[in-house]
Amino acid sequence: MKSFLYPKINPHSFAWVRPEGRAPEKVHEWIQPLDGAADPEKSKEAEIIVVGVPLSRSSISASGASEFPDAFRRAWKGFTTYNLDEDIDLAKMKALDVGDVPLHVTDIRRCHENIIEASEALHSHFSNSKVCAIGGDHSITAMMVKGLQKSKPGERIGILQFDTHFDLRDMSDNGPSNGTPMRNLIESGVVEGSNMYNIGLHGFFNTKDLKQYADEKGVNYITLGRARKKGIEATVLQCLDELSAKVDTIYLTVDMDVLDIAYAPGVPASTPGGMTTAELLEGVLAAGRHPKVKAMDIVCLDPLKDTNVQPTVKLGTHVFLTFATGVMLR
Amino acid sequence: MKSFLYPKINPHSFAWVRPEGRAPEKVHEWIQPLDGAADPEKSKEAEIIVVGVPLSRSSISASGASEFPDAFRRAWKGFTTYNLDEDIDLAKMKALDVGDVPLHVTDIRRCHENIIEASEALHSHFSNSKVCAIGGDHSITAMMVKGLQKSKPGERIGILQFDTHFDLRDMSDNGPSNGTPMRNLIESGVVEGSNMYNIGLHGFFNTKDLKQYADEKGVNYITLGRARKKGIEATVLQCLDELSAKVDTIYLTVDMDVLDIAYAPGVPASTPGGMTTAELLEGVLAAGRHPKVKAMDIVCLDPLKDTNVQPTVKLGTHVFLTFATGVMLR
Amino acid sequence: MKSFLYPKINPHSFAWVRPEGRAPEKVHEWIQPLDGAADPEKSKEAEIIVVGVPLSRSSISASGASEFPDAFRRAWKGFTTYNLDEDIDLAKMKALDVGDVPLHVTDIRRCHENIIEASEALHSHFSNSKVCAIGGDHSITAMMVKGLQKSKPGERIGILQFDTHFDLRDMSDNGPSNGTPMRNLIESGVVEGSNMYNIGLHGFFNTKDLKQYADEKGVNYITLGRARKKGIEATVLQCLDELSAKVDTIYLTVDMDVLDIAYAPGVPASTPGGMTTAELLEGVLAAGRHPKVKAMDIVCLDPLKDTNVQPTVKLGTHVFLTFATGVMLR
Amino acid sequence: MKSFLYPKINPHSFAWVRPEGRAPEKVHEWIQPLDGAADPEKSKEAEIIVVGVPLSRSSISASGASEFPDAFRRAWKGFTTYNLDEDIDLAKMKALDVGDVPLHVTDIRRCHENIIEASEALHSHFSNSKVCAIGGDHSITAMMVKGLQKSKPGERIGILQFDTHFDLRDMSDNGPSNGTPMRNLIESGVVEGSNMYNIGLHGFFNTKDLKQYADEKGVNYITLGRARKKGIEATVLQCLDELSAKVDTIYLTVDMDVLDIAYAPGVPASTPGGMTTAELLEGVLAAGRHPKVKAMDIVCLDPLKDTNVQPTVKLGTHVFLTFATGVMLR
Amino acid sequence: MKSFLYPKINPHSFAWVRPEGRAPEKVHEWIQPLDGAADPEKSKEAEIIVVGVPLSRSSISASGASEFPDAFRRAWKGFTTYNLDEDIDLAKMKALDVGDVPLHVTDIRRCHENIIEASEALHSHFSNSKVCAIGGDHSITAMMVKGLQKSKPGERIGILQFDTHFDLRDMSDNGPSNGTPMRNLIESGVVEGSNMYNIGLHGFFNTKDLKQYADEKGVNYITLGRARKKGIEATVLQCLDELSAKVDTIYLTVDMDVLDIAYAPGVPASTPGGMTTAELLEGVLAAGRHPKVKAMDIVCLDPLKDTNVQPTVKLGTHVFLTFATGVMLR
Amino acid sequence: MKSFLYPKINPHSFAWVRPEGRAPEKVHEWIQPLDGAADPEKSKEAEIIVVGVPLSRSSISASGASEFPDAFRRAWKGFTTYNLDEDIDLAKMKALDVGDVPLHVTDIRRCHENIIEASEALHSHFSNSKVCAIGGDHSITAMMVKGLQKSKPGERIGILQFDTHFDLRDMSDNGPSNGTPMRNLIESGVVEGSNMYNIGLHGFFNTKDLKQYADEKGVNYITLGRARKKGIEATVLQCLDELSAKVDTIYLTVDMDVLDIAYAPGVPASTPGGMTTAELLEGVLAAGRHPKVKAMDIVCLDPLKDTNVQPTVKLGTHVFLTFATGVMLR
Repeated sequence: MKSFLYPKINPHSFAWVRPEGRAPEKVHEWIQPLDGAADPEKSKEAEIIVVGVPLSRSSISASGASEFPDAFRRAWKGFTTYNLDEDIDLAKMKALDVGDVPLHVTDIRRCHENIIEASEALHSHFSNSKVCAIGGDHSITAMMVKGLQKSKPGERIGILQFDTHFDLRDMSDNGPSNGTPMRNLIESGVVEGSNMYNIGLHGFFNTKDLKQYADEKGVNYITLGRARKKGIEATVLQCLDELSAKVDTIYLTVDMDVLDIAYAPGVPASTPGGMTTAELLEGVLAAGRHPKVKAMDIVCLDPLKDTNVQPTVKLGTHVFLTFATGVMLR
Repeated sequence: MKSFLYPKINPHSFAWVRPEGRAPEKVHEWIQPLDGAADPEKSKEAEIIVVGVPLSRSSISASGASEFPDAFRRAWKGFTTYNLDEDIDLAKMKALDVGDVPLHVTDIRRCHENIIEASEALHSHFSNSKVCAIGGDHSITAMMVKGLQKSKPGERIGILQFDTHFDLRDMSDNGPSNGTPMRNLIESGVVEGSNMYNIGLHGFFNTKDLKQYADEKGVNYITLGRARKKGIEATVLQCLDELSAKVDTIYLTVDMDVLDIAYAPGVPASTPGGMTTAELLEGVLAAGRHPKVKAMDIVCLDPLKDTNVQPTVKLGTHVFLTFATGVMLR
Repeated sequence: MKSFLYPKINPHSFAWVRPEGRAPEKVHEWIQPLDGAADPEKSKEAEIIVVGVPLSRSSISASGASEFPDAFRRAWKGFTTYNLDEDIDLAKMKALDVGDVPLHVTDIRRCHENIIEASEALHSHFSNSKVCAIGGDHSITAMMVKGLQKSKPGERIGILQFDTHFDLRDMSDNGPSNGTPMRNLIESGVVEGSNMYNIGLHGFFNTKDLKQYADEKGVNYITLGRARKKGIEATVLQCLDELSAKVDTIYLTVDMDVLDIAYAPGVPASTPGGMTTAELLEGVLAAGRHPKVKAMDIVCLDPLKDTNVQPTVKLGTHVFLTFATGVMLR
Repeated sequence: MKSFLYPKINPHSFAWVRPEGRAPEKVHEWIQPLDGAADPEKSKEAEIIVVGVPLSRSSISASGASEFPDAFRRAWKGFTTYNLDEDIDLAKMKALDVGDVPLHVTDIRRCHENIIEASEALHSHFSNSKVCAIGGDHSITAMMVKGLQKSKPGERIGILQFDTHFDLRDMSDNGPSNGTPMRNLIESGVVEGSNMYNIGLHGFFNTKDLKQYADEKGVNYITLGRARKKGIEATVLQCLDELSAKVDTIYLTVDMDVLDIAYAPGVPASTPGGMTTAELLEGVLAAGRHPKVKAMDIVCLDPLKDTNVQPTVKLGTHVFLTFATGVMLR
Repeated sequence: MKSFLYPKINPHSFAWVRPEGRAPEKVHEWIQPLDGAADPEKSKEAEIIVVGVPLSRSSISASGASEFPDAFRRAWKGFTTYNLDEDIDLAKMKALDVGDVPLHVTDIRRCHENIIEASEALHSHFSNSKVCAIGGDHSITAMMVKGLQKSKPGERIGILQFDTHFDLRDMSDNGPSNGTPMRNLIESGVVEGSNMYNIGLHGFFNTKDLKQYADEKGVNYITLGRARKKGIEATVLQCLDELSAKVDTIYLTVDMDVLDIAYAPGVPASTPGGMTTAELLEGVLAAGRHPKVKAMDIVCLDPLKDTNVQPTVKLGTHVFLTFATGVMLR
Repeated sequence: MKSFLYPKINPHSFAWVRPEGRAPEKVHEWIQPLDGAADPEKSKEAEIIVVGVPLSRSSISASGASEFPDAFRRAWKGFTTYNLDEDIDLAKMKALDVGDVPLHVTDIRRCHENIIEASEALHSHFSNSKVCAIGGDHSITAMMVKGLQKSKPGERIGILQFDTHFDLRDMSDNGPSNGTPMRNLIESGVVEGSNMYNIGLHGFFNTKDLKQYADEKGVNYITLGRARKKGIEATVLQCLDELSAKVDTIYLTVDMDVLDIAYAPGVPASTPGGMTTAELLEGVLAAGRHPKVKAMDIVCLDPLKDTNVQPTVKLGTHVFLTFATGVMLR
């Protein structure tokens, strides 16, 4: 039976069997699927909302990132809800998996519209929750943010981005692909360039004109080299401080290609010289703790390219849990 | 410098260094790229035209079939032009690689239109040549055939299809995806169902309603089991015989998922119980020899999923060379 | 909520979302999980019972065959219920997935006892159904058959086995491992050697003393070479004919290592020179059609060793569907 | 011919050809197999004893860690005996490979008893040597320590553990699996909780009740985060200092899952956010130098899951050589 | 201690532990290493001589075929000595593994000379045995045959070759590489072209000039297509019949690239459209039975490229055992 | 048409299609192939010369490093010319890819002579450019340096080496293999031991006698441990300072096996405990900036062993671009 969010959100394709008569210990026992019988009002208590956005046909290179939402759900079984570093148990927070945004095979524009609508619906209904979008490729970020804005008209939105790339490509070339989300948001007037903070740029992975565009629009960026020197946590805190002074709501987007390719074999666009796992987790935790961060996404992770023991899928899942830890520590 | 076919066809991304002062021995020495200085009239002498159609974002499942045209070109180096079984040398035929159909990242409809235009342009210009489209997913077949028809208005076109699937899905669900090309051609009136012959259906890979649709439209199909009993070559010959009586031009489409998955690890939709390599090559050779077969394609081969020594990319290349052998044997 | 079979059978770990308001088209829409609210009496209508037996720590070599039941369930999504070769739709038969036999990590004897109990419970309750055990390693066969016998005391049981090995190793060496099931059944008096028929032996994969033991006990075996000469279907039919004259119930066991290693990279014990996929499917279909075949299993398939596109998991699933087709054709 | 340790220890399955007439340069030339003709008394001179414990059917998840002892031996060829960092040559120490503990396929309890007996025999005979057990899964640690205690009744034993997990699961659930060794030792009174020091815990890989049990029993643990801040070497030294004041003998157990999954693709339980190779080697060297460390093990490394060039097998071997370096530096 | 064949043959790098007090059951228990204490005269009783020829730096393409001799020896453990198809036990024949031909890293000519010397020494000493050379790449065949001829001056030698290629390339281009062995033997006068029989040629894998050279020299070849029509066994028997009438000794060379790439992922030069495993084993068995076949080799199998469960290494080992079966059946 | 460097340098096997009418943005658009029509004088303006040296049959272990030059060229497409960290655009420097050194299949000595001649020709013609040799195995370094010396008689040459090994093996054992280049240069009097600086030695990967030889010859080495303590950049700067005082020209050789195996799965000789990517790039950048560094090479990277998304090929390419950045920053 479909939930009250249907047809804006589809149920996802499978559900874990949950424990009876004991508290959840593993993540798959903790995160509740939103089933058809759910009470809309009661559902608003959830602090964490998970939504799958399995779109990657908008990716410039062939991508299986569409498979990450399900791979992510299957990976839950390998994680407990208890964070030993912080000595807190996520199971004390309510978390809902509302399902996947419905998509179309050959009409990408419609996919993007569906994501905007789904995001608006989620942010409207779950107005006190943190909405976590599990991509999919980076084109979804522009759509999730547009939906967020529609749900909170008049609010200023800022973005904290972990990325090896600017993602500021010109949409007139190839439409709203995964190379364009930040430009999309600037050009559509949803987010000002000066309210965007990108951490992690490095190497030979951006053309010079993108850097020039970023400068023109006042996009803030801290290369990985500089962030390392200052400390990742300190860098994130400073970005959030600056953003807080300017915006009402902060959206965190984690492009997994910010990672060094040794840590992320399942992210085809990851590169040599990127972040380590420890650095990314440190940054995401800091972001999760900030009270203005209301939404986040994890994008560009292609499970079909991951190696044998699924290191990247596990890492993507860990990023989400680390964000949730930050939320709980607020 | 771009060729006279530009902007309908782009130059491909790289070119092999060719031999000086001796006849070609390997395939990459034989097939000439169509460069910017080429004389349009002289180019018409080519008997074989290769065109890349690197589109797979129209695929229902995540697919890297878009990478096959380049993988195919890189594989040429591993094949000689001399066919020992038939004792003929393909190098005596002229073959041109005209490049790739230009595509768009986020507008699949425009991609399809581009393919139709490119096909029409190729069939108009190279009216005596065999046009070989290297996909890409199966959605391209409908577009290549539509372009063929536009170039030869009034001609009746028939199709010989090697496939595990009908590819007769309803376009109203998800548009012209890789599950729909045959229905697309029927519904658009380009090819009649009764002029379609499908060889290779088997197992649990088609829903019942597709079979009912096929029956309604008079689509002809010979399951793999029946084809094996009769003999693959005999089956193909009989289909071509029947078709010849009804149409002016026959289009051959080779969906590589017709193969058993043991032979085609790089075709995600291949299945247990499919054709062997020897069977497919036997069928393609027979088709290549038939005078009414004027065009063909090879689709749904995803090199990103192939195993270590690239067996499927090599097999896809062999299918093309076998077709060319058939053409030369006419 | 646990079903009426609990604690003999656990619910499995996840469930597919099922279609609303239309007939099932894919296998994951067809096979119903046995949920806690199920009516025991009504459940008996099911013609096919699937039970997972995820035990492989009893395997001589390190094995991940314990992961097959879940891999098998996940693979359903890739198959329709409609068998095109036979033009029948499995969805017209009722099929239940009752879950997994509960197992213990370090007490293999207890695991085996649990399997016997589960098998007895299933055969007692679903006395008109075909019980399909999804292994796991081959040690489970002895236990499934013992449970079958307990549920039908006094009946004579025969076995049709597809295997590269005799599986007649001496249990006094290493207990009831995956090398011993047939000897286990002979020595425990559950099945007579002369009521066992093994198809598929070949090559250098059995020691001579096992062959001598087989001869002493009157075990029937047809090497792959001889079966090929006679025809696989004809061989199976003859074995079933002979068996029918001697026993009340026939148990079919498919050790996936009977396959040639080119067809079954995910079966570590598969070998060069084994059966092709087409041969195995032909044999299983013939077995499935025989009215005395009341139970079957599929064993020794290790999804952790399968290659990229999961050819062996898909093949194992196809074996099950082919058996079900046989049942429906009876 | 079997050695004087038979039947408590079997010869291993193969032996390297050793150099004639020159000193050993590679590890496979240095470590001597204990052959049947060896003089028991003379053998006691060995400072390093290697014993294989190829048991992993006691692992909660399907594991091929049983294959590590042989993979470890095959890897010796890739390492010299000369440690360039410390400018010492291990070849000056005598090292013996005594073979493997005999195991049973289906009786895990018997396997565990055999390990206890083998450990006792080794520690009794080689009372001045360091016994290095090459696992196998982590269940073997409890057994190796029990054997050690039997050989030295009355001595207090402490444990230094590198691990992502507590390994304090309740044995009443699933017996002495690889999740339980530390609890096993506490509950059997062999090692007090307060004499256990765990370095490396982090993330979401332990349930909260295990942490509570650890606290109740006074188990000492330093999370990876805290160890990093203090320095790995300093952390190890402080643990060893504290332990030295309380116990007579220290046992070092290296669960390879303490490593970040990027460094240990061949350890299925390794996780994102774990130790780097450099950190683990630094810790193991410090432990190896401590005079009270008399025994060690390396567990949970599954060579069947390692990637192409065997990074994890090489790393496991390096851990052993680093420990031996520490011993030589004492 | 080195054997009496040293320095022409080195001991191989490791030895299996052999059974005590019982007959061998597995291949690694059967084939005896030739150790330093072996009695030269007594050693002549061996019917089968195995020698490793780990040379592949003479390969045109980068090759790890040098690793096959050791991979072959490690694979023995997976095979029994008992051939069930023929009901014979190889353990009744004496088999010796004499070790490896010593090779040089940067002087390929010296490698080739060493192989000639080793072959001569083996054929001289073991004049009644069948010498089986385990390559290495195909360049070794010319050297093994030259050594054979030196040991039997005046005898006429013929060759039966399973191969996808002629291996008749011109040595003046790149020296005696793996593309040249047959031409090498013709040009050096060791074997006449008319005494060479090649079975398995097919497809686009030979340039036309090689076919012309073959025709000029009278080399006999039966394409795979023709051999299939006649039957592989019948084809082999006819070739051997013809050869017997012309020569004293027949050398069998099995280039593993004759196999279809689906069966031989570990042979980089294998191709789509090649032999099946069953066909090759049928051919090798027939050759092994012929009394004039005195030597054989297996070449061009690169274990570094094999897939997970080592299908090609297992198949290469099976080819050897099948040949030995033929010898025993004489 | 072959360039003026022919026959000392062959054209490489393929060429990228270059942009028309706009500045290059990607590396494959920037680096110009040296085609046959190039003006020799004008070509001297190039600051960076790329030459492929696809030799790895001189490698001690089986190696596919011969495939790196082409893999390197194919990887260019994935990198922009703009270095964001330093805010400079490489496209402002002229770079030429002159092709590959011609090699022989079976005569390694001739290969080495060809490399010396090619190096001499390049350094003579492009006397103000930085010549970057893309290996191939480490044996090529001795040859490239010998050619450099021939082109600049009387100049003193020094070497900065990143390596896990000394590469000082004795050539009398196995000739000028990849284990010998530094010794080769010392013994041939081309470079004095005291003018060699090796950074990165660690662990158990050099025999003691090599260290003793290094000490005798005054070779300078800084182990990875010591370099880390001092800082990689500071270590490199100090080595270059010392070298500058002693030599006229510095040659940088980057043996990719200096990397930790987690970062370099495509370097079979990489080891646990090696450099991180960030460390190597830091070191190479510092070296590239030094005015006396006139030539460099990248060796021992085997693309055939790289994992799925080609992390090591990408890293090798990044090393080159980082060196070029250093050159531009001079």
